[in-house]
Amino acid sequence: MPSSAIRKLVPLSDAASARGVKVYHLNVGAPDIKSPSCAIDAVVDRCKSLHHLSYTNSAGLIELRKAMVEKYYRKIGIDIAPEELLVEVAGSEAFSCAMQIAADRGDEIIVVEPFYTNYQTFAYLYGITLKAVPTDIRNGFAIPDISEFEKLVTDRTRAVLLSNPCNPSGKLFTKEEMCAIGEFCRRHDLFLISDEVYREFCYTNEPHFSAMNIPGCEQNVILVDSVSKRYNLCGARIGCIISHNREVMAAAMKFAQSRLCPPVFGQYAALGALDTPQSYFDEVRQEYIRRRDCAVRLLNEIPGVYASMPYGAFYTIAELPVENAEDFAKWMLSEFSRDSRTTMITPAESFYKTPHAGRNQARIAYVLDVPELEDAISILADGLKQYVSTR
Amino acid sequence: MPSSAIRKLVPLSDAASARGVKVYHLNVGAPDIKSPSCAIDAVVDRCKSLHHLSYTNSAGLIELRKAMVEKYYRKIGIDIAPEELLVEVAGSEAFSCAMQIAADRGDEIIVVEPFYTNYQTFAYLYGITLKAVPTDIRNGFAIPDISEFEKLVTDRTRAVLLSNPCNPSGKLFTKEEMCAIGEFCRRHDLFLISDEVYREFCYTNEPHFSAMNIPGCEQNVILVDSVSKRYNLCGARIGCIISHNREVMAAAMKFAQSRLCPPVFGQYAALGALDTPQSYFDEVRQEYIRRRDCAVRLLNEIPGVYASMPYGAFYTIAELPVENAEDFAKWMLSEFSRDSRTTMITPAESFYKTPHAGRNQARIAYVLDVPELEDAISILADGLKQYVSTR
Repeated sequence: MPSSAIRKLVPLSDAASARGVKVYHLNVGAPDIKSPSCAIDAVVDRCKSLHHLSYTNSAGLIELRKAMVEKYYRKIGIDIAPEELLVEVAGSEAFSCAMQIAADRGDEIIVVEPFYTNYQTFAYLYGITLKAVPTDIRNGFAIPDISEFEKLVTDRTRAVLLSNPCNPSGKLFTKEEMCAIGEFCRRHDLFLISDEVYREFCYTNEPHFSAMNIPGCEQNVILVDSVSKRYNLCGARIGCIISHNREVMAAAMKFAQSRLCPPVFGQYAALGALDTPQSYFDEVRQEYIRRRDCAVRLLNEIPGVYASMPYGAFYTIAELPVENAEDFAKWMLSEFSRDSRTTMITPAESFYKTPHAGRNQARIAYVLDVPELEDAISILADGLKQYVSTR
Repeated sequence: MPSSAIRKLVPLSDAASARGVKVYHLNVGAPDIKSPSCAIDAVVDRCKSLHHLSYTNSAGLIELRKAMVEKYYRKIGIDIAPEELLVEVAGSEAFSCAMQIAADRGDEIIVVEPFYTNYQTFAYLYGITLKAVPTDIRNGFAIPDISEFEKLVTDRTRAVLLSNPCNPSGKLFTKEEMCAIGEFCRRHDLFLISDEVYREFCYTNEPHFSAMNIPGCEQNVILVDSVSKRYNLCGARIGCIISHNREVMAAAMKFAQSRLCPPVFGQYAALGALDTPQSYFDEVRQEYIRRRDCAVRLLNEIPGVYASMPYGAFYTIAELPVENAEDFAKWMLSEFSRDSRTTMITPAESFYKTPHAGRNQARIAYVLDVPELEDAISILADGLKQYVSTR
């Protein structure tokens, strides 16, 4: 079992805090924005009349499944029945389950690189080999021609797995790109596992195009979703898996039964969150656009740094003028500070499968408000200057 | 992936309900007893001052880990440090994680049979072979001589796995039995995975003897625990894994990081639950003793039925005068009712690894109050009489 690449610098960060150094966490996608009050109020209301907190159905409360379908997915143009949605213990369980449904030990899944690092963690656990389609930071992480996917197909290929918007690159897949990948999946009889947990964080004026709406791909698509980011409820640990494919849903139910049920207080919060007004999402989106614009501008002002412009999620990948971004990230935590403050970033190499790819890159999460973000990136710039000059 | 044996009759039960038949659920260990108000109040209090529900440390809130150690484990004589306890997504994740830590694909784990059916589910998923030490219902499921364990040892054996008190048998392991198994584990350098989620449900006057207190076994024992049953908080999905073995805890942390964090509202409830007064446990225990005595007496009054006396948990295994208890359980749901009521039980075969063992047995959960329990077992008796007479 490999260590979490995102979390393995945590001991150094803890040590810095223990020395009295304030650490700006640009390393994790842990938003600081207020959860919708309707979500929290729903938990309180349920608690008031609660006798005992029993198990729910393994697939989640039926009222939650129905409400998700009617109040959220219908509104955004994803047309499903409640039995095509199963509540999971956050997006983590949803994609872990989707990968196990799609592939057996020894099978292969094609991923678009860079990708969320825990895809590799679970692939390792389940004996699944990830085969990477590379994309290029200098080209906005655009999806290459489908012939690049074709090259990777073997008789063990079972699925394509991607996140849209993409963590870590901020890449937003166009309708054309999604349809091309969908057609590829249909032609080779592959599942398309589409992780859309950042759906509400898109910064173009186009609506998000879900894999669920690729024509003719109904039996191939497994959608992974979560309330963590959408409602700033990361700790609720509620997500879902969605598919029109009945065999997929039957398999998901078997996995769900093995862990009995999803967290019930979190299900209450998710139910309440469905009444979140559109104005909440609009405000949050504007806030992230401000943060993104600030982060990308300031990063690109640092000599030798190239930060790509993300069109979704709340991350950017930045090339740094260093050989090994992990060494630099460690140095920032253990040897550098400015006025007792330092900045933590995530080295990007673990988001890549191709050997050595991304070694000089870092993922920057723009999850602080603008004044803090400015200070954090200014400190990063100073650190980088000193690091580079002494090497 | 096999279906959950406990939950696979659910569609028949749902169909019976849809026909207007009330189903008494003696099939699942879902207690109906009030959760401690301090647990629910803690959630409400936290909600009142909550800005946003963020991730916690993957190992759980440090204040929860400290409070569990100080307010619960110390009190019951289990002496651990907070870093020897990691918060899990209920007992399910805790034993799933313990099994993966102890054994690789192709390895073997010795289980005491009958055993909780999801041990087999996860063993299947992880490519682990369970080897069963049989126990006998007519002998109170007593642990056989250690030579029966010795017979099963191969060079792939990695652990012994048991639940104490035992789900499904209600067997309560004595200090002598636990020490003998511990000595066996030490001798063969095996882990001892001790699932003690029913610890507060013991009906002898002896204190529960935890595997954590087997002398000399400190590096072998992995304790699995949960708040589900202890505080009637099944839906909170909070449990923990405990070990003095640092390598075990480091591995558990890697698994924990892959799913980011345990449910946070549930962690709040677990924190509040630690203030539950002893009187709560005493009352609950007395209630279960009443239910147990009622269930075992009434079951043994049914011609041809033999129900064993459980000394812990809230299940009894009953031998029925049928060839196949699963067929009978299905018949009770689909073809029998009395005054629009029927009784659901769990066929016991899936609690056994030995082929055909337990086929004429059922697990009865005494989780209803005495009047309902009486009615449910009376209906079971009538059903059994009719079923037997027509075969």
